[in-house]
Amino acid sequence: MSKAERTTKFIIEKAAPIFNKKGYAGTSLSDLIKATGLTKGAIYGNFNNKDEVAIAAFDYNLSYINKPIAEMIRAKENSIEKLLVMPEFYKKWYVHFAERGGCAMLNASVEADDNHPLLKKKVAATVNSWKKSIEKIIISGISNGEIKSGIDPSKMSSTFIALIEGGIMMSKITDDTSHLNVAMERMEQIINTEMKK
Amino acid sequence: MSKAERTTKFIIEKAAPIFNKKGYAGTSLSDLIKATGLTKGAIYGNFNNKDEVAIAAFDYNLSYINKPIAEMIRAKENSIEKLLVMPEFYKKWYVHFAERGGCAMLNASVEADDNHPLLKKKVAATVNSWKKSIEKIIISGISNGEIKSGIDPSKMSSTFIALIEGGIMMSKITDDTSHLNVAMERMEQIINTEMKK
Repeated sequence: MSKAERTTKFIIEKAAPIFNKKGYAGTSLSDLIKATGLTKGAIYGNFNNKDEVAIAAFDYNLSYINKPIAEMIRAKENSIEKLLVMPEFYKKWYVHFAERGGCAMLNASVEADDNHPLLKKKVAATVNSWKKSIEKIIISGISNGEIKSGIDPSKMSSTFIALIEGGIMMSKITDDTSHLNVAMERMEQIINTEMKK
Repeated sequence: MSKAERTTKFIIEKAAPIFNKKGYAGTSLSDLIKATGLTKGAIYGNFNNKDEVAIAAFDYNLSYINKPIAEMIRAKENSIEKLLVMPEFYKKWYVHFAERGGCAMLNASVEADDNHPLLKKKVAATVNSWKKSIEKIIISGISNGEIKSGIDPSKMSSTFIALIEGGIMMSKITDDTSHLNVAMERMEQIINTEMKK
């Protein structure tokens, strides 16, 4: 890694939790200067504008959660077990990622939908790609006989993501983990009783 | 209504959709000046600071949705029908309130949770009071024999709000109403098959 690449990486790592907590409009250049200890010149030597830092921070925040989930899912062979990774992960790790500002997709989504066309497009693509990845697990489970054939992969994926994001929103604002836990128990119930063959 | 009260009401009505779309940090005094056609002095003659306008706008945005729902619920006698008002309302009116920036509770929640202790407290109280109002319907339905006695009012209310808010988030960012519709169909299914006696 070159020195410039290391600096870019350093800026993104420091900026990521700030953008996730304070939002795009709420994060100022002085926040980034304070968090990195770098000058304005050094930051904008590596990024053209705040937009670029925000997009890179969003990617970093996403992969911070997606990478471990994807690895845990890959480690399971059965499609029912793959689906159960999600509720298990969110129940276990919620407190940890809540400290970093919570779900980057939820935060960026609410801020971008009416205001930032570029970020909106990116977040929408993230929602759709997450949904597709759940659909793929369900389709494969139906084809290998682990999941009942009457299940609608698209509807089920939307339901799961709604339960996860709605549960996170409720737990984050009330400082009460029970809402997310209840939503994740519902997801487990759907997987174990409606979907499992 | 005095002239001062009319001006206050006018400012709130104009500020409400702006705060809901642009967020607290993203709404500037010049946005409020532009939307109302009033001077800075006229606005701050009626409010002590931006915080006060934001809180009043949040209340206005909430009641914009809560009032019609509450009336529709009051008009139903059976507790199952009262619960079914919510999914029916969100499916029917989503496009209309999406144009005004979507769900005020969701928007304020994501912005306030890490940044604005006063607004956070207010939004958390709103979530809890909404949850309590659903619980009350369920408890009354259990006691009058319309709802099965094994149902957990607290868990069911958390699940419903998670489905509503998660569904709104997904539909808002993707400009695709199907996610919210799927989440609301799930809510209807729970009410009709799990809860109804």
